[in-house]
Amino acid sequence: MNQDYIKPDNWSIIEEGFDASHVKSSESIFSIGNGAMGQRANFEEAYSGDTFQGSYIAGVYYPDKTRVGWWKNGYPEYFAKVLNAPNWIGINVTINGEPLDLNTCTSVEDFRRELNMKEGWLSRSFKATLPNSIQIEVEVKRFLSLELDEIGAINYLVTPLNSDAEIIFQPYLDSGITNEDTNWDDKFWDTTKVNHANNQAFIEAKTMKTHFHTCTFMESVVFLSGKSVLVEPSITESSNKVSFSYAHAVKKGETFSIQKFGGYTVDRNHDKSNLVNAAKAVLKTATTKGFNQLLEGQKQAWAKIWEIADITIDGDVKAQQGIRFNIFQLNQTYLGKDSKLNIGPKGFTGEKYGGSTYWDTEAYCIPFYMATKDQNVARTLLEYRYNHLDKAIENAEKLGFNNGAALYPMVTMNGEECHNEWEITFEEIHRNGAIAFAIYNYHRYTGDYSYIPEKGLEVLIGIARFWQQRATFSADKNQYVILGVTGPNEYENNVNNNWYTNYLAKWCIDYTLEQIEKIETEYTSDFSRISEKVKLSKKELALWKAVADNMYFPYSEKHQVYLQQDGFLDKELISVENLSKSERPINQKWSWDRILRSPYIKQADTLQGFYFFEDQFSNETLERHFDFYEPFTVHESSLSPCVHSIQAAKLDRMEQAYTFYLRTSRLDLDDYNHEVHEGLHITSMAGTWMSIVEGFGGMRVKDNKLSFTPKIPKQWKGYSFKVNFRNHILKVHITQEQTNFEIIGGNDLEILVNNKPLMLKGDSLKVVS
Amino acid sequence: MNQDYIKPDNWSIIEEGFDASHVKSSESIFSIGNGAMGQRANFEEAYSGDTFQGSYIAGVYYPDKTRVGWWKNGYPEYFAKVLNAPNWIGINVTINGEPLDLNTCTSVEDFRRELNMKEGWLSRSFKATLPNSIQIEVEVKRFLSLELDEIGAINYLVTPLNSDAEIIFQPYLDSGITNEDTNWDDKFWDTTKVNHANNQAFIEAKTMKTHFHTCTFMESVVFLSGKSVLVEPSITESSNKVSFSYAHAVKKGETFSIQKFGGYTVDRNHDKSNLVNAAKAVLKTATTKGFNQLLEGQKQAWAKIWEIADITIDGDVKAQQGIRFNIFQLNQTYLGKDSKLNIGPKGFTGEKYGGSTYWDTEAYCIPFYMATKDQNVARTLLEYRYNHLDKAIENAEKLGFNNGAALYPMVTMNGEECHNEWEITFEEIHRNGAIAFAIYNYHRYTGDYSYIPEKGLEVLIGIARFWQQRATFSADKNQYVILGVTGPNEYENNVNNNWYTNYLAKWCIDYTLEQIEKIETEYTSDFSRISEKVKLSKKELALWKAVADNMYFPYSEKHQVYLQQDGFLDKELISVENLSKSERPINQKWSWDRILRSPYIKQADTLQGFYFFEDQFSNETLERHFDFYEPFTVHESSLSPCVHSIQAAKLDRMEQAYTFYLRTSRLDLDDYNHEVHEGLHITSMAGTWMSIVEGFGGMRVKDNKLSFTPKIPKQWKGYSFKVNFRNHILKVHITQEQTNFEIIGGNDLEILVNNKPLMLKGDSLKVVS
Repeated sequence: MNQDYIKPDNWSIIEEGFDASHVKSSESIFSIGNGAMGQRANFEEAYSGDTFQGSYIAGVYYPDKTRVGWWKNGYPEYFAKVLNAPNWIGINVTINGEPLDLNTCTSVEDFRRELNMKEGWLSRSFKATLPNSIQIEVEVKRFLSLELDEIGAINYLVTPLNSDAEIIFQPYLDSGITNEDTNWDDKFWDTTKVNHANNQAFIEAKTMKTHFHTCTFMESVVFLSGKSVLVEPSITESSNKVSFSYAHAVKKGETFSIQKFGGYTVDRNHDKSNLVNAAKAVLKTATTKGFNQLLEGQKQAWAKIWEIADITIDGDVKAQQGIRFNIFQLNQTYLGKDSKLNIGPKGFTGEKYGGSTYWDTEAYCIPFYMATKDQNVARTLLEYRYNHLDKAIENAEKLGFNNGAALYPMVTMNGEECHNEWEITFEEIHRNGAIAFAIYNYHRYTGDYSYIPEKGLEVLIGIARFWQQRATFSADKNQYVILGVTGPNEYENNVNNNWYTNYLAKWCIDYTLEQIEKIETEYTSDFSRISEKVKLSKKELALWKAVADNMYFPYSEKHQVYLQQDGFLDKELISVENLSKSERPINQKWSWDRILRSPYIKQADTLQGFYFFEDQFSNETLERHFDFYEPFTVHESSLSPCVHSIQAAKLDRMEQAYTFYLRTSRLDLDDYNHEVHEGLHITSMAGTWMSIVEGFGGMRVKDNKLSFTPKIPKQWKGYSFKVNFRNHILKVHITQEQTNFEIIGGNDLEILVNNKPLMLKGDSLKVVS
Repeated sequence: MNQDYIKPDNWSIIEEGFDASHVKSSESIFSIGNGAMGQRANFEEAYSGDTFQGSYIAGVYYPDKTRVGWWKNGYPEYFAKVLNAPNWIGINVTINGEPLDLNTCTSVEDFRRELNMKEGWLSRSFKATLPNSIQIEVEVKRFLSLELDEIGAINYLVTPLNSDAEIIFQPYLDSGITNEDTNWDDKFWDTTKVNHANNQAFIEAKTMKTHFHTCTFMESVVFLSGKSVLVEPSITESSNKVSFSYAHAVKKGETFSIQKFGGYTVDRNHDKSNLVNAAKAVLKTATTKGFNQLLEGQKQAWAKIWEIADITIDGDVKAQQGIRFNIFQLNQTYLGKDSKLNIGPKGFTGEKYGGSTYWDTEAYCIPFYMATKDQNVARTLLEYRYNHLDKAIENAEKLGFNNGAALYPMVTMNGEECHNEWEITFEEIHRNGAIAFAIYNYHRYTGDYSYIPEKGLEVLIGIARFWQQRATFSADKNQYVILGVTGPNEYENNVNNNWYTNYLAKWCIDYTLEQIEKIETEYTSDFSRISEKVKLSKKELALWKAVADNMYFPYSEKHQVYLQQDGFLDKELISVENLSKSERPINQKWSWDRILRSPYIKQADTLQGFYFFEDQFSNETLERHFDFYEPFTVHESSLSPCVHSIQAAKLDRMEQAYTFYLRTSRLDLDDYNHEVHEGLHITSMAGTWMSIVEGFGGMRVKDNKLSFTPKIPKQWKGYSFKVNFRNHILKVHITQEQTNFEIIGGNDLEILVNNKPLMLKGDSLKVVS
């Protein structure tokens, strides 16, 4: 834990007292989003201190020309960057000619920020004394509407406390913004038109190269003591900025306030010639409702999300706050409405990691969305990859594969590879397996097989083809090997026979062969369509089968464990607890070669395979592998603690499971990895959800039935969660003494509890102790 | 072979006929240098076609800020770049107001370039018709003086052929030049002063960051029909250029000519405030001698070099031209006068490969310089590394080593690492072994042990310490392993137990331990000084010994060969001859991951070890390894064919040895690797020399005696070479029938011929058939 200033609270994230050194960290933590756009918690008014400005529009990106030291064949030419979008939240404030800037105020008192997760709004209040000795009180509330997802609203109130004052509000739009992350300091936005009328302003701007057309807009209205007043603004306009000035003489104790509505319309959703009209339309709807009614709608929309997604924890505020923060941020990032969007690892909270889509989506996020949303959301995420299949085939061709073999990119925005380190881009190929696994997992959980004949099988075939071609027959071993890969543990590069990758490759082929057989028999018209398209032959399937049936897995007889990769036992096996604290995190303290030849594991690798395929292994085998690998794991990836928490719980190591849970759920709130100022770790937040539901709750799907093995950390009195399982809403409430199961939507459902069947009737409670 | 336009000739490189598509290639091939500076064969007059301008000053470099895709701890911040220096060769020519530009002439006839290697000059002649229909004949000769190595001279003659004409010569200096290779388009030169007086001009400029101060200078004199004429030039001066205009009316058939002297004085050799005076002094010496006398001196200086360095080949002009080109270019690049200089892989012929010093120097170049120069030249090259020992220790510390362990950089200009790919910079550590081997090799050849107690031992100790710390004890193998390395075959990255590296590591430790023992007994005062400085303990030596005595070497019982690295046999072992031609060169056709998991070998790796340590292995063992590895070798490094030629000759495979010889000796002339336009491969040229002397001649040093096993390719009538061995100059002349040995300088010498002793008396010939 590296920071401790967030106040524990069940429903809110709270910061009290102004500390300039926390600004960038809080800008990340207090970020707001509505799935269509999002923004860091930058101040509305000018701030001259250290800040990282960021406002993001879903799906709007920039292909930055790749920067490398030494070019290698196959590197992508461009790297899709998350793009800082024009600023619409800005409201400069002037008091008797003095600009309000928290960095220059002579004192700032009662500073308080709150991110209310229950209702979906961000507030800030403080008393500040300006250099001209005027003391003011400020209260601001802002939210991005879930209901009207092109718009957000701000209510900004200023009260002079020690004197009358002339107060000026200057709401503005600004497209002269930059990206922190740029390879060549390119200009990313081209502003095409700035205009205004009445109290509205519009900036039309398009992204360079990708030509996304956007309109950034605003409309403001000012109030004195809560009553709308008519102030004729003076207007300043430049080539990429427009600013309105509302000035008013305000008496001591009186409150002058502004409500600003703003946001983006984008040609992803509208005709590009119609963006201003679309903006006017959404402004009209929003201003007609007004700030308060819009906020009321926001509360209701969030209530609906929480209704199913909430997890309660009783007796441990920090744990409660952690899980809600994770669920809240996931829902701010992705709501499953748009099949072209995905779940960026930093969501709308920063620029780091170009592209939006990693294997995180399939390996970590899909279970969360399957259980807390309608199943169409998960299906939409699967379809995202189906829609990128051609690009994945093209990507594989660039690397020398053929015959429709598909290699999905490590990082992408539009299906093209964005990453450019050979050891990742070309070698971290296990990602392909996660994409196949998600198809299996979707069917296992939802029972909806239709996706596979309709779309999934083509994806599976492309992936199986890749694995068959990527495997090498070792005459020496008389088995198939997979050479030159990077596993999930990126602290090993270009290794041979990464167990996880080999296992996944074999599984992908076997699973695809099973689906082909099933679809050939049961979905004959789908089968004809597909086989027409992909031209499968018996001969090819035999090649696949040879690879899957003769895959090599590195194994140590001595330790009775699968080896993470060939040669793992040659390492100097000193466990992490015997490593000096001053050496950690090793990714900041050690040179890369030293990390590579060390035994240290960035995130679950062999254990990730045990997580995916736990049915294939006994508890004793899991335990042996956990005991072998966990001591070398440094968890320097956000995706690591959750998998370990789930497996520790499975092994009844509740203390360890709890520690891992806290680490995953409060990773950003407590800034474990010294990097929260860059943005939040969104995708691993789904892992946090899994560590409660699958870890402590022990939820699995076994033979089309939900199964639970409820456990509870000793630190908690109780906890509860709900899941949507095949249109049944099931609530599970676990205490130290007992577990309550309740169907609160849908029909009767038979579940398994500790491997025994339990029949649940609608609206009745079953108690298992 | 990818080009074939160079005319075969015993002593010259000749191009006939103007082809714009050859310009960049010829600019490389016809490069001239004198050890202190060098330049590509750019035209003096303006040329608007495709060209790569380059003039280089030895030891003057620029530390370009490193560019990487993803930063890793330990990467160097700067990359020392070979720096294009101000242009002093420029002479613009105008005929009746029309600029001469071969790219715009309506015809170019009788174009001929000659690089006369015997005498050390470059000439060019042609007849050209300008757009204004004037036809002229041009003859140019230029050289960089070996005698006065700060200066070069140009004689440029123009004769109007079809009309009288006003001819203007505009000799100029220009420091407004750029580098083709720049990471951030930085400006590399800061011009501080431009001035002129009489017919002389001077531009003082310093490099950014490194602050090398240089003065670029020129002086010109013009002639009509060979007689000096006084023409008052008009002068143009800007902030980084100065140009003189000499205009004259010239009658049809009359020759107007200019002699231009120019070059650089540098604060590496002079006080920086005195550069202009130093320039004036060298100009005075040069102009007093005049062009012809200076050229006469040039011929004599080259005659002196050839006296010992020449290799003759009878009956194979292309082979003869190849070896002389290699010897010539090596001598143009490095003459051993300055202990701060080294042998850049591209010499003075291009910018590629930043830094000047690779392990090429120790592994390939030192044998050439030992045998064809005074032994002090090789000693100076060893001292270069001694002088960088502190930096090598610092470099190792950056990677986490301690206690004086030294890791020499992969690439350097001043001792600091310049490279920034983790798989090379951090892992291609075998370079450290070559530096130790060169010390051993120097002693073996010259018999001069004094270098080791004086300086070499400290280097050896730093290197031995590195190897001991870099090795890992594998509890699994109960042996020491070396994990995560890149061997000489850079088509494998981050492998475990590269046999060559492991063998070299063990050898380094063993050799260092032997030297410590010897110096402790025989050079006691040196030993006290050194042990005071490096603080060796018995305990530490025992640690070293444990590593050397228990080093693991991957071996295949089945194939009876050492494996290039762990896991080599898992590859799909398809030999190069079964690889489609369209797939090659693989470094241009394949993605990096595919190269890595293939069995293809860029350059001798295991076989490099057999070359260094051949006494340790029987011929049968060598043959087995040659037969195992050569079929997988693609020779896509310039350093590969020479080692294979030597070993093929040793195995009596003369046809193969000859093919490899041609490939190494004519690599650039025939552009085998599609890249000669970027510059020449200087360091591998020393390998060409080795492939004749050590390969065909079979020269070795055995127990302080020179030993030969003479062989001759069937394509040759005979060949001869000379070597300087411990102050004896021995000439060896091998024909199909016999071998003549002759001492032509020094005293009697006993040598071994086919392992039998042969006593050579001064000035008498011994014939062995």
